[in-house]
Amino acid sequence: MAYLNEGYLKLKAGYLFPEIGRRVREFQMAHPEAKIIRMGIGDVTQPLAPSVIKAFKEAVDEMGNESTFKGYGPEQGYDFLREAIVENEFKSRGVDIAADEIFISDGSKCDTGNILDIFGRNNKVAIADPVYPVYVDTNVMDGRTGEMLPNGYYDNIVYMPCKEENNFIPELPDQPVDIIYLCFPNNPTGTTIDRNTLKKWVDFALKHKAIILYDAAYEAFITNPDIPHSIFEIDGAKECAIEFRSFSKTAGFTGTRCAYTILPKTVKAYDVKGNAYPLHGLWLRRQTTKFNGVSYPVQRAAAAIYTTEGKEEIQSTIQFYLENASIMRNALVSAGFKVFGGENAPYVWVKTINGMKSWDFFDLLLQKIHVVGTPGSGFGPSGEGYFRFSAFANRTQVIEFTERIKKL
Amino acid sequence: MAYLNEGYLKLKAGYLFPEIGRRVREFQMAHPEAKIIRMGIGDVTQPLAPSVIKAFKEAVDEMGNESTFKGYGPEQGYDFLREAIVENEFKSRGVDIAADEIFISDGSKCDTGNILDIFGRNNKVAIADPVYPVYVDTNVMDGRTGEMLPNGYYDNIVYMPCKEENNFIPELPDQPVDIIYLCFPNNPTGTTIDRNTLKKWVDFALKHKAIILYDAAYEAFITNPDIPHSIFEIDGAKECAIEFRSFSKTAGFTGTRCAYTILPKTVKAYDVKGNAYPLHGLWLRRQTTKFNGVSYPVQRAAAAIYTTEGKEEIQSTIQFYLENASIMRNALVSAGFKVFGGENAPYVWVKTINGMKSWDFFDLLLQKIHVVGTPGSGFGPSGEGYFRFSAFANRTQVIEFTERIKKL
Repeated sequence: MAYLNEGYLKLKAGYLFPEIGRRVREFQMAHPEAKIIRMGIGDVTQPLAPSVIKAFKEAVDEMGNESTFKGYGPEQGYDFLREAIVENEFKSRGVDIAADEIFISDGSKCDTGNILDIFGRNNKVAIADPVYPVYVDTNVMDGRTGEMLPNGYYDNIVYMPCKEENNFIPELPDQPVDIIYLCFPNNPTGTTIDRNTLKKWVDFALKHKAIILYDAAYEAFITNPDIPHSIFEIDGAKECAIEFRSFSKTAGFTGTRCAYTILPKTVKAYDVKGNAYPLHGLWLRRQTTKFNGVSYPVQRAAAAIYTTEGKEEIQSTIQFYLENASIMRNALVSAGFKVFGGENAPYVWVKTINGMKSWDFFDLLLQKIHVVGTPGSGFGPSGEGYFRFSAFANRTQVIEFTERIKKL
Repeated sequence: MAYLNEGYLKLKAGYLFPEIGRRVREFQMAHPEAKIIRMGIGDVTQPLAPSVIKAFKEAVDEMGNESTFKGYGPEQGYDFLREAIVENEFKSRGVDIAADEIFISDGSKCDTGNILDIFGRNNKVAIADPVYPVYVDTNVMDGRTGEMLPNGYYDNIVYMPCKEENNFIPELPDQPVDIIYLCFPNNPTGTTIDRNTLKKWVDFALKHKAIILYDAAYEAFITNPDIPHSIFEIDGAKECAIEFRSFSKTAGFTGTRCAYTILPKTVKAYDVKGNAYPLHGLWLRRQTTKFNGVSYPVQRAAAAIYTTEGKEEIQSTIQFYLENASIMRNALVSAGFKVFGGENAPYVWVKTINGMKSWDFFDLLLQKIHVVGTPGSGFGPSGEGYFRFSAFANRTQVIEFTERIKKL
């Protein structure tokens, strides 16, 4: 008799974004004339940069010719891309990362989920609240939690509430933990972390021999030089951190699919007897056994963002989204909202009106001004009463948003 | 203290193909003048078909234009591809599969590894020997086995030896099992299975409420109408089987990356209390939570193989590889080898000379005639004394191979 993984039976409700999709579809069917502005899912709207398109097509042409055709590539990614990343993302900031510590993948969602394969079920996990739901759900699936409690928390996860009182920066857990998820610039709150605060986390992890899973998917939106782009800018992080990066938001690759994980050879985990093993070898084994590398033309397309033209082109798109965020922030402040994030981040996080519940506010926005955002409570109980707007939109929509928000 | 997954510590030695790569590199460095023919890794050599290249580039162009740009796609794959698969792979053979039972992915290696996520650790797994090493290794990583025993078998796996005596078709286990791996046309032996024999497996699975994981990655090489392309051609399979298919060998996508899994809604697994749950919902949840879909241009490229031109183009490449296999078979038979497979399959499986060990034969071939193949023992203990040649090569290499094999 085939047995299922009972971790899946503990998962509550659907994933946040399908539920948003369902409500929007129902509303649109009932009101076909309504022109809906979508600022719900954090999905890019601007096309791939011209130099990315050029490199992409050239690589496709290589695949059409026997002499340049590429079959199986290295599961960890081609050297040309790993080396371009080292040079442009790390060396340029004085961070010493080797090319073989970079693992190219088809997405940070995959990486943050799959990384759990190399960890035992016996780890105590600390997760911010609100948070990108994938961190929680993948641990539930993996059997690292108990059932969901009446307060909306899963048993056996250490939640770290992020609220206005702590500027949406989690506080250090008051107990030892083994795996810590951090994401900065933050999804959903748009908050950033400074070097001193991040150093406290690294010290905490080193003290407890814990590992920080650091999601830096939004680092490209950082303009303030005091904010670190990588956790590896912090002393000691190479002994305790794994970082996740993506071309999705940096270069509009949400539909093209390319990302990478940085796993320094000095990061170790332990067997139950306390023997230390470098995780680099385990992840390499995981990726070579369960993954077959990213499409060659996609890797060539990704590498093109590191050319002179590519850099300028993607910077201009990032500036465009940051301007969107700034316009949205101003409109929301003028409309009387309490607003967070939206600087050095593509997400604007607002407090709902009069303590309204997040999903009620979602329905109000959808029905009254035909705007879709993301209910804060969808990211965890501490997100209740908050709401996320994504600055990934075209300018016409953003201007229209500022008009509509006045009418709320 | 962060704990690792101790399943990884049970894995023995490196993965087969890196070891082949290492020996070949060492030999080439010592003998830079040697012209090596590589028939080791089963990797395609022929370029993508012209209609695939055309569709691929058109889709890349769509990504460069705001009005046609695609962000996040459906994690399960675009309807245009799922529907083309249903129409061309299943309806055309009288098999009733719905489009939402097809899950598009970036590779069968990923799918056959990841599918284990939705199964409990408490399943007894039956695996053929010799076998594609990923099936075994992913179960070891997942904690579904004990340590490796002195005979080269992992404890707690039910191995099904495939030898000359049983025509390399596994016999039904003499005990109940929960998950059964089958692969036809087989990698590495090139064997196929007829409908009657496959029906016995389906009946066995139904009787024991087991699930068959059916790897049909090489179905495109079947020319004999008595051999089923899909397990779903067999009555009852829709209640007990999950099938894996790939564009890798069908259309030369090993470096482009696209595959799919067929999971009928009627396939169920059980919790420990014996309650049945459809696995379709669990896999959908797994894929939407831990995966973000295949690159849009890659899906368009894959769909192009179902156009009139695309079908002809890929058929001609498959015929080319089958001719390679036939030429190699004949040469090996003439040279006195006992030969299996190589018909309806791209792999030729031979018995080594004078009972030589597989790796010794590997070294002999490499050193004496500069030919690389795959040692049968790398696929499991019952592969000892056998050797695999891949027909994925260009014709010049194949002709050269026939000349060199005479000199062995």
